[in-house]
Amino acid sequence: MVKLAFGSFGDSFSVGSLKAYLAEFIATLLFVFAGVGSAIAYGKLTANAALDPAGLVAVAVAHAFALFVGVSIAANISGGHLNPAVTFGLAVGGNITILTAIFYWIAQCFGSIVAGLLLQFVTNGLSVPAHGVASGMTAVEGMVMEIVITFALVYTVYATAADPKKGSLGTIAPIAIGFIVGANILAAGPFSGGSMNPARSFGPAVVSGNLSGNWIYWVGPLIGGGLAGLIYGDIFIGSYSSVPVSGDYA
Amino acid sequence: MVKLAFGSFGDSFSVGSLKAYLAEFIATLLFVFAGVGSAIAYGKLTANAALDPAGLVAVAVAHAFALFVGVSIAANISGGHLNPAVTFGLAVGGNITILTAIFYWIAQCFGSIVAGLLLQFVTNGLSVPAHGVASGMTAVEGMVMEIVITFALVYTVYATAADPKKGSLGTIAPIAIGFIVGANILAAGPFSGGSMNPARSFGPAVVSGNLSGNWIYWVGPLIGGGLAGLIYGDIFIGSYSSVPVSGDYA
Amino acid sequence: MVKLAFGSFGDSFSVGSLKAYLAEFIATLLFVFAGVGSAIAYGKLTANAALDPAGLVAVAVAHAFALFVGVSIAANISGGHLNPAVTFGLAVGGNITILTAIFYWIAQCFGSIVAGLLLQFVTNGLSVPAHGVASGMTAVEGMVMEIVITFALVYTVYATAADPKKGSLGTIAPIAIGFIVGANILAAGPFSGGSMNPARSFGPAVVSGNLSGNWIYWVGPLIGGGLAGLIYGDIFIGSYSSVPVSGDYA
Amino acid sequence: MVKLAFGSFGDSFSVGSLKAYLAEFIATLLFVFAGVGSAIAYGKLTANAALDPAGLVAVAVAHAFALFVGVSIAANISGGHLNPAVTFGLAVGGNITILTAIFYWIAQCFGSIVAGLLLQFVTNGLSVPAHGVASGMTAVEGMVMEIVITFALVYTVYATAADPKKGSLGTIAPIAIGFIVGANILAAGPFSGGSMNPARSFGPAVVSGNLSGNWIYWVGPLIGGGLAGLIYGDIFIGSYSSVPVSGDYA
Repeated sequence: MVKLAFGSFGDSFSVGSLKAYLAEFIATLLFVFAGVGSAIAYGKLTANAALDPAGLVAVAVAHAFALFVGVSIAANISGGHLNPAVTFGLAVGGNITILTAIFYWIAQCFGSIVAGLLLQFVTNGLSVPAHGVASGMTAVEGMVMEIVITFALVYTVYATAADPKKGSLGTIAPIAIGFIVGANILAAGPFSGGSMNPARSFGPAVVSGNLSGNWIYWVGPLIGGGLAGLIYGDIFIGSYSSVPVSGDYA
Repeated sequence: MVKLAFGSFGDSFSVGSLKAYLAEFIATLLFVFAGVGSAIAYGKLTANAALDPAGLVAVAVAHAFALFVGVSIAANISGGHLNPAVTFGLAVGGNITILTAIFYWIAQCFGSIVAGLLLQFVTNGLSVPAHGVASGMTAVEGMVMEIVITFALVYTVYATAADPKKGSLGTIAPIAIGFIVGANILAAGPFSGGSMNPARSFGPAVVSGNLSGNWIYWVGPLIGGGLAGLIYGDIFIGSYSSVPVSGDYA
Repeated sequence: MVKLAFGSFGDSFSVGSLKAYLAEFIATLLFVFAGVGSAIAYGKLTANAALDPAGLVAVAVAHAFALFVGVSIAANISGGHLNPAVTFGLAVGGNITILTAIFYWIAQCFGSIVAGLLLQFVTNGLSVPAHGVASGMTAVEGMVMEIVITFALVYTVYATAADPKKGSLGTIAPIAIGFIVGANILAAGPFSGGSMNPARSFGPAVVSGNLSGNWIYWVGPLIGGGLAGLIYGDIFIGSYSSVPVSGDYA
Repeated sequence: MVKLAFGSFGDSFSVGSLKAYLAEFIATLLFVFAGVGSAIAYGKLTANAALDPAGLVAVAVAHAFALFVGVSIAANISGGHLNPAVTFGLAVGGNITILTAIFYWIAQCFGSIVAGLLLQFVTNGLSVPAHGVASGMTAVEGMVMEIVITFALVYTVYATAADPKKGSLGTIAPIAIGFIVGANILAAGPFSGGSMNPARSFGPAVVSGNLSGNWIYWVGPLIGGGLAGLIYGDIFIGSYSSVPVSGDYA
């Protein structure tokens, strides 16, 4: 059951909400800078060779570590989403109002674009790689891959951070959230790129001017994240007596 | 001393138990998807070259991270087994009833099979690799390898999660459980494959139609897991005054 | 708003302060020994080949793990800075007095120099590599890279360790601080070297006698760390009623 | 100041002490199995090629993960030493009696030998690699390397686990202890092997029959561990009012 929360208009413009948007912007910027930066670094070290297993480890570990930290540094201010699919998955469960969610999306995408521009500058103009589905695969296969791995990510957010009965799991939640992304990149990287995050894909696509397949990284993650919100929220949290309506799910 | 618990028939069909089976199914599916997916990704990147050390790191880290997260997301609902050898080791110590354990096994194996089928689809039909003992080794050597490393895994589950005196170790238990699997894959990967988990081996074997050596990954892990349950339960927990009979050991 | 704290002269020479300087010296020494040692080890294994992706992973993981531990072992005594940019960023927010901060800098730089000398001895005289900006890049680009990634580091220190409302994030703060450095090295390593730490760069520069570009690793990190202190301190901590003035921010 | 504790003779044969020896035996066995196993696995994958950076990462990560888990699973029973240098460092600070320490050493060495024998069996007789100083280095250089890195390890044990004022650091202590070993192997691996642990070196030396340079891995780690105990115990713990005399420092 979808539990969209609308809230009062003013809530989305409170000082706390504005700080949350800034926290999302900064944390997403820093996450994308390290994650996409690691892909550019691979190209620099190998004269743009095709990705090899050591490079996949480098990119996966960079994303895992940086997302863990990004979630940590925003957790107490904005809830630490850094990802429109996470925000959407939490909105589906009624954990954030629609209007606030929209501003989260804007902050996240803007952070990702600025990260891409900064990377372009500090690398003396190297190109910023955009996500794309591997040749030999169909767009639907790539989208289903993104659905499955984003489901895993948002399910992890629910189980370790949003569930009111999370207990001591809350202490290690940011590590779990970062590391499921690392694990999934090790599996999905050579196929769909392993995005799980529309903002992570959108920024480099804008900066590189290559938006052709970008829809896959919106549709797939939003379906996967929404499904996780529905299933975890309905079946496991289920008997919530009152729905908290705020951007802070920690 | 084996402390099998039988419980009432209805306990295994309570709403809580049904949620536990679903949690095991989902968490095992997501773990196997990332773990086996990383092995397929290695093949994709190297045109199916023989495993090299960078690839071994990729596969080990994917399993370590994904199992840590899989245990985390199921911990509060089902206890976070994701593995028939863990369920068996806990049953030997009386921590879960026989009938409930059987349903856990079914959920875990079903999750692994669905993961294999999903991987086959999203990779445009690439083959799903099944565990096997390296050439030049005997089946008994492979089985003993699996006994030792599964003993390590289930002993870790007992010491950090099931032991009522675990204290603050409980907070990092899911990380320890995931990382002992990562360490053991770095040692056992090139020999027995480093399964430690009958469900992890069963799904890809079913999907690939290659069940010939699959018994090794049932017999080895179940012996190792059972031994860990006996030793840790009898010697270290020992003086348990009351045996908790539930799927939740956290 | 810069909140420099001056404190009484005697505070910087109390027994507690002297122990803090010693703790900073030891922890920085051990961090630099492992971090720079991993770069020397790469040269040893590859006969000084150009860095490849596997080597970048080795160096990034060594720094991440060693900084996590270095912060942990000094946290309760000195606050676990190990880095003049962290000390500066905390001074900007009024978390440490100016005079004490100067002694922290001295202890950190001295620890880094001793680490470099020890490495030179135990490796039978191999050269100790100094940070430098990659060829094809300008010094300004390298400096901006260091500004961005040090901003990420010091922002993380604030959000997870110095913020009085950090909550359970404090438990995993040392891991977050170490891992953001690991992630940023995976991105910045092939461009600016990924220092984020003037002391980390200064010791090897002194030992190798190559101080030519060392200013980049002072100016960049100090700007980035200072900005993080200003932004996090002013916007997020903001309404601090009393400013704690001590070296212990944990 | 050395604070050796002698205790009553019977203390070392209490049921609790016997359980502690068993816990040290099992945990050291499982740690050495994964750690040394990862080195054998590298040889298997590369037809015994010289170590490369990807292999160094594999070996370092295996030791880091396995030691973290090994410390975790023994922490509440024996204190989780798994290492004669750790036991010695804690004895120097009066945290364990001399006689009990001797039995810890025996349990640790015995666990390491059994791990080596098991590895030989499950790998169909592959040779078990013993630590040795790299060619081109002197034994003294190797010993000093081991002194520095074992100092780091035992200092970490004191700061995160044995210090009564450790606070929330105690929760992540096993991770810190494992990861400093991982970081130090990334630096020292190609030079001294990066042992930090006489038992870790002794087992493979006995099983391979190659005890020639084994003294380096006793003298170096014991000096380093003893120094850490003296410095941390005297300067930082210092004003201990009562010295706890037990094998459990957690």
